[in-house]
Amino acid sequence: MGDAVSVTFEPDGRTMAVAPGETFLRAAQRAGIDVVATCGGRGRCHSCRIKVIKGSVPPPTIMDTVQLGHDEVREGFRLSCQTSVAVDCTVMVMPPIAESGHQILSCTHDFREASMSLDSGVAKRFVKAELPSGEHHQTSDVEAILAALGDGAAAEVPLDLLRRIPTLLRDADGALTVTTFHRRIIDVESGDTTAHKYGIAFDIGTTSIVGFLLDLDTGEQLAGVGSMNPQAVYGGDLMSRIAFAQFNPSALKKLQARVLAAINGFVQEACEKAKVEATHVYKVVIVGNTCMHHIFLGIDPSYVGLAPYAPSVRAPVVVPAKELLIRVHPNAPVCFLPIVAGFVGADTMAVVLATRIYDSPQIRVAVDIGTNGEVVMGSREKLMACSAPAGPALEGAQIKHGMRGALGAIEKVEIGEDVVYGVIGNVPPIGVCGSGLIDAVAKMLDAMVLEPSGLLRLEERELLPPALRDRLIERDGERQFVLAWATEAGNGQDITISQQDIRQLQLAKGAICSGILMLKKVMNVSDEQITELMLAGGFGNYINIESAVRIRLLPELPVERIRYVGNAAALGAQMALLSETERARAVDLARRIDHVSLAARPENAALLVSGDI
Amino acid sequence: MGDAVSVTFEPDGRTMAVAPGETFLRAAQRAGIDVVATCGGRGRCHSCRIKVIKGSVPPPTIMDTVQLGHDEVREGFRLSCQTSVAVDCTVMVMPPIAESGHQILSCTHDFREASMSLDSGVAKRFVKAELPSGEHHQTSDVEAILAALGDGAAAEVPLDLLRRIPTLLRDADGALTVTTFHRRIIDVESGDTTAHKYGIAFDIGTTSIVGFLLDLDTGEQLAGVGSMNPQAVYGGDLMSRIAFAQFNPSALKKLQARVLAAINGFVQEACEKAKVEATHVYKVVIVGNTCMHHIFLGIDPSYVGLAPYAPSVRAPVVVPAKELLIRVHPNAPVCFLPIVAGFVGADTMAVVLATRIYDSPQIRVAVDIGTNGEVVMGSREKLMACSAPAGPALEGAQIKHGMRGALGAIEKVEIGEDVVYGVIGNVPPIGVCGSGLIDAVAKMLDAMVLEPSGLLRLEERELLPPALRDRLIERDGERQFVLAWATEAGNGQDITISQQDIRQLQLAKGAICSGILMLKKVMNVSDEQITELMLAGGFGNYINIESAVRIRLLPELPVERIRYVGNAAALGAQMALLSETERARAVDLARRIDHVSLAARPENAALLVSGDI
Repeated sequence: MGDAVSVTFEPDGRTMAVAPGETFLRAAQRAGIDVVATCGGRGRCHSCRIKVIKGSVPPPTIMDTVQLGHDEVREGFRLSCQTSVAVDCTVMVMPPIAESGHQILSCTHDFREASMSLDSGVAKRFVKAELPSGEHHQTSDVEAILAALGDGAAAEVPLDLLRRIPTLLRDADGALTVTTFHRRIIDVESGDTTAHKYGIAFDIGTTSIVGFLLDLDTGEQLAGVGSMNPQAVYGGDLMSRIAFAQFNPSALKKLQARVLAAINGFVQEACEKAKVEATHVYKVVIVGNTCMHHIFLGIDPSYVGLAPYAPSVRAPVVVPAKELLIRVHPNAPVCFLPIVAGFVGADTMAVVLATRIYDSPQIRVAVDIGTNGEVVMGSREKLMACSAPAGPALEGAQIKHGMRGALGAIEKVEIGEDVVYGVIGNVPPIGVCGSGLIDAVAKMLDAMVLEPSGLLRLEERELLPPALRDRLIERDGERQFVLAWATEAGNGQDITISQQDIRQLQLAKGAICSGILMLKKVMNVSDEQITELMLAGGFGNYINIESAVRIRLLPELPVERIRYVGNAAALGAQMALLSETERARAVDLARRIDHVSLAARPENAALLVSGDI
Repeated sequence: MGDAVSVTFEPDGRTMAVAPGETFLRAAQRAGIDVVATCGGRGRCHSCRIKVIKGSVPPPTIMDTVQLGHDEVREGFRLSCQTSVAVDCTVMVMPPIAESGHQILSCTHDFREASMSLDSGVAKRFVKAELPSGEHHQTSDVEAILAALGDGAAAEVPLDLLRRIPTLLRDADGALTVTTFHRRIIDVESGDTTAHKYGIAFDIGTTSIVGFLLDLDTGEQLAGVGSMNPQAVYGGDLMSRIAFAQFNPSALKKLQARVLAAINGFVQEACEKAKVEATHVYKVVIVGNTCMHHIFLGIDPSYVGLAPYAPSVRAPVVVPAKELLIRVHPNAPVCFLPIVAGFVGADTMAVVLATRIYDSPQIRVAVDIGTNGEVVMGSREKLMACSAPAGPALEGAQIKHGMRGALGAIEKVEIGEDVVYGVIGNVPPIGVCGSGLIDAVAKMLDAMVLEPSGLLRLEERELLPPALRDRLIERDGERQFVLAWATEAGNGQDITISQQDIRQLQLAKGAICSGILMLKKVMNVSDEQITELMLAGGFGNYINIESAVRIRLLPELPVERIRYVGNAAALGAQMALLSETERARAVDLARRIDHVSLAARPENAALLVSGDI
């Protein structure tokens, strides 16, 4: 306790010495301060949240972000059970919000009230099987186990289990845990392991991959993992990825091997984080666009890249993990959500599940922002979808100083007499993420650094305030605008936005904007009829909405009708992981959503937005 | 034609010159002699049979034996389509017997009238799928194929096919052959391959393995293959085989690898013989005793060898060929018939199917003679079964000069003043097969060469006729009786029956006899009530029934009530291959047969027959 720091808990005002590394929750509990921890301090709810009001705010964990949403995280809210004390500080203990036990899935306001049944399809039962004996000679090991289960488990047992059952049954003297997926036995273990029943959900995007390990019994989120998609070395956007693999089986194998290695790395990482055995992961749900879906399954995506862009399979694919070489339980079902069309894939179905747009009495729009974005519009009456291929710019890729929305990314920009920026984690900046780019370009427009056409006004720089004037430069033969000088940066170099970056952003926003316009036209919907526009995507939460509207990425709706819904694709994948009802719903919905194809409706080409900002 | 030989066809009496190697059928057809060849000369029926009445009779092919039965083969009957002309001879063209197209399965009188539906579950359909186009953009390759099929094929397609469909569909411009097993798609090929739909059935015995390649559309038997079970190097009988593998995973793997290699060799051999592609083999049926069944599946058979001798699984196992590494179509279902009890296995179920004993109004008995034989007794009212572990002696194994019932085996023995023997194929003898051993021992008893206890009467040899006296010798410290002198033998050595061989036979017949007695007692059945005793087993056809009764291998029933039914296990396997109705019947029957265990009924131990012959 030599290094103990001082923590003050408001509103009580009690101050105590805390050893660095102890969580705020434990410290508060030791001090006798009443902090509600509904989930037992495991990061699965947000009843224990605190707000840091004095002293530096620790960087958020993924659980903070998932449970509290980006807004609260930005405002200094943290889960006290997940946050360790590091330096002297003062925190406010917040009154708990009423919530269900499965709050984990509801990382934004919309989902907070959503209820969902926990019916993952995976069941574990501890049984005492009666070993075959002289009196029961006309039986078998499998029958002894089925009899102990006593319900309608299917008599067909996978071969790997048949091979292990004779020894397992006798070593444990019949005391076994049997795992089933629906009626089918997928695992038999010695002793009682019913407490360990996990699943993992992945959203495989063109640019990034995220995964969440969940407890299938409680819905608790045990670990989150993610990184860039390692296939990106073979092309940043989908078409270049398809071109690489096109009619080239060995290239396809390379892409498949890369994503498989990443997924297996994530499985291992998540299991280590959560201290669970990978063999206790009994269900996997994977969502992703059609191309990612096909490549992961080893299906040639060539024809997805050629008119009429037909997928090879749209129906929900379910394959045992062993067949795909995913290192969870070999018999775990790996469930891919269904596909609507070539460029409206399983990820869109996950967004539809998560936003519950299918249940809406009035018109809503879900915009999944990503390298291969999609727009879904409609209500419980009818749903239509189209693709909105924004390219990787909004995910910070193929941008001069671009980066993911991670520690050190400029995510917020204000421009007055000079530039003021906000950095994720309040550390010196090392790059700019998609939301920072949008914010910067919007503010640069306002500050007359940019022409409406998107050109950096190098020729008229003398009209700008002196600090801005200095930032508008020509370097390496390209116009650039310096957001952060090398002296402030964490990596010792100027962080700039280049003319090329702005062109990339224009393409991205043009794609999304065109998608929304096309669906509005086809469905005959006016802006007034759109009661809500939901921004989904890994970084949707981080966008400054005014800036997005300013650069016409989004239509000019009243700001209160535009909402962040977080990574809805990943959320939908988790819903399908926890609930077979939800997974079945996706299958049903995929059949009912109409795909609007620009290719099939050339009359809509006119809707393509020009390059202007 | 320089080497042409002369063949006379009766009753026409026409003689013609024939080039050696030409079949009798072709020669007859050239001569304008009317020989009916219902199956087109492919060995699938017996309409073209001839009888060789002068000149040497060519050795029978497996098709001769299957189509004509051993009796007719022995009498010189052959299929003219399968038999090549070799030397000058006279043959009688026989009037065809009325028969169905699927006569192949009915190799004995009993089955000749049996009708069976050809419902293998495997269907091939040639379709013209409409490629996804601009007008049909919201579809997929798989849906295009399902739409062309137009019926209720399941939407789930195996992963390997999903991976091949995009290219296949377009290369063939939609002209595809789709193979299903029940509703599930198991193959998709370019072009029309509907003519090629095969299956293979195996009977894996402790001592020998036989297999038959069938056309699933016609029931035609295209090739027969067989050999000793290569596991035999690890122990001749089941218990020594189990002891080798017991609690020793690497030994189990060795046994499994040996039988798998044999099966794959047979698949290749059968396909080459029949000139069909192994990838066109879409269904495999395997029968065998519980130990062979478990070992083939890689299931530890240890507990099958320990009281209460419980199988690990009794239910019918169905596994895709790729999972078992059987080199037929990777998605072909490999179907194992169900098991009744530890020593009443899938082979017994095949015997039950083939003999239709379940349908009998009166009591019948099926005796499957083999290293691990079984006895089934009953009628449509009730069926009971027990094991009759005869050991390998009856299959010619572990006998000094023992061999399978193949070319060169002494199969028939008469003893008067001297020994007269019959050899399979009428060639110089090289050994003695099981039926020869039974016949020899029975005749040795009659000739007073043997005491009733089974002892060779070396001490009283002077009482025998001189020729027999010379044959009764002591050599290598063992009493032996010479059946064939080295000068007559094909391998240049005396072919003898040793005292030890006789002891082995006594054990074998004791096991079978005890099984029959026990079931008679348990079911309260008298010899008079047994309307038929069916002798099954690879060599059942070859046994001299009087001799078998003489040595009390079989009960003293009137000879006309004892019948050969051939390799009923292999026949039942083929029935389950051709007909899902039959396979389902086996599943139903396996649940209804009562197993009588000697171990569980110690009061029956007294029934064990003493060593006396």
